[in-house]
Amino acid sequence: MKTVITYGTFDMFHIGHLRLIQRLKSYGTRIIVAVSSDDFNRIKGKKVFFPYQQRKEIIANIKGVDLVIPEINWEQKIEDIKKHKVDVFIMGDDWEGKFDFLKEYCEVVYLPRTKNISTSQIKQSINQMRQSNQSKGQA
Amino acid sequence: MKTVITYGTFDMFHIGHLRLIQRLKSYGTRIIVAVSSDDFNRIKGKKVFFPYQQRKEIIANIKGVDLVIPEINWEQKIEDIKKHKVDVFIMGDDWEGKFDFLKEYCEVVYLPRTKNISTSQIKQSINQMRQSNQSKGQA
Repeated sequence: MKTVITYGTFDMFHIGHLRLIQRLKSYGTRIIVAVSSDDFNRIKGKKVFFPYQQRKEIIANIKGVDLVIPEINWEQKIEDIKKHKVDVFIMGDDWEGKFDFLKEYCEVVYLPRTKNISTSQIKQSINQMRQSNQSKGQA
Repeated sequence: MKTVITYGTFDMFHIGHLRLIQRLKSYGTRIIVAVSSDDFNRIKGKKVFFPYQQRKEIIANIKGVDLVIPEINWEQKIEDIKKHKVDVFIMGDDWEGKFDFLKEYCEVVYLPRTKNISTSQIKQSINQMRQSNQSKGQA
């Protein structure tokens, strides 16, 4: 058994999130996803749309995800890797190089992000769509 | 084995969608979700944010979902029920009474929607959040 971990906010679940989770599967058999807590997002100054409980519940219900843990600070990663016997630590390549210090504890992989999709872009596009459609409120 | 089906757009996957899918499980063991095609949404005059392929892929990867089929017109339901040997047809209670004609073919259930969450509301709130935060573009 090979255990893989990734960390993220996973606000407004989209196809880029799903593809990332699916790609983790090619690196191991047990998938752990650390979802950032609301407090941690506040510390980072990161605004999220959905609360931790909802973001976590969705991730926990994606096929292939075995465990969701909360990400509550910057320092927990080494402890997580040891505690959960992680073999591969994976992040998007927007973090390239940033977690190389973890190579002492496990394999570190940076994956290319799905092009043209991010939560920021979704929020922007919704805003533009709404402006151009004068808020018809359809869904 | 009892087969359950529901129909929906499932644009911008959220906790209300997840809870609906989970509740289907209490009515049967095999879960089929019909996801509206882009063409069908155009016919209905319904604007969606994500294309069918992405909406479908996310639903297909939710734990508990066994099959995703496209919803391409208003008339396919009786055929779907027969073809997939559906025992229970389930919709949100915003459709209460609208599909009683299917009772001839299977059980028809209307479930209460998760309160305070819908794709329309999400789009509206994002818009408001962005306006009040002056588009910091965080995600």
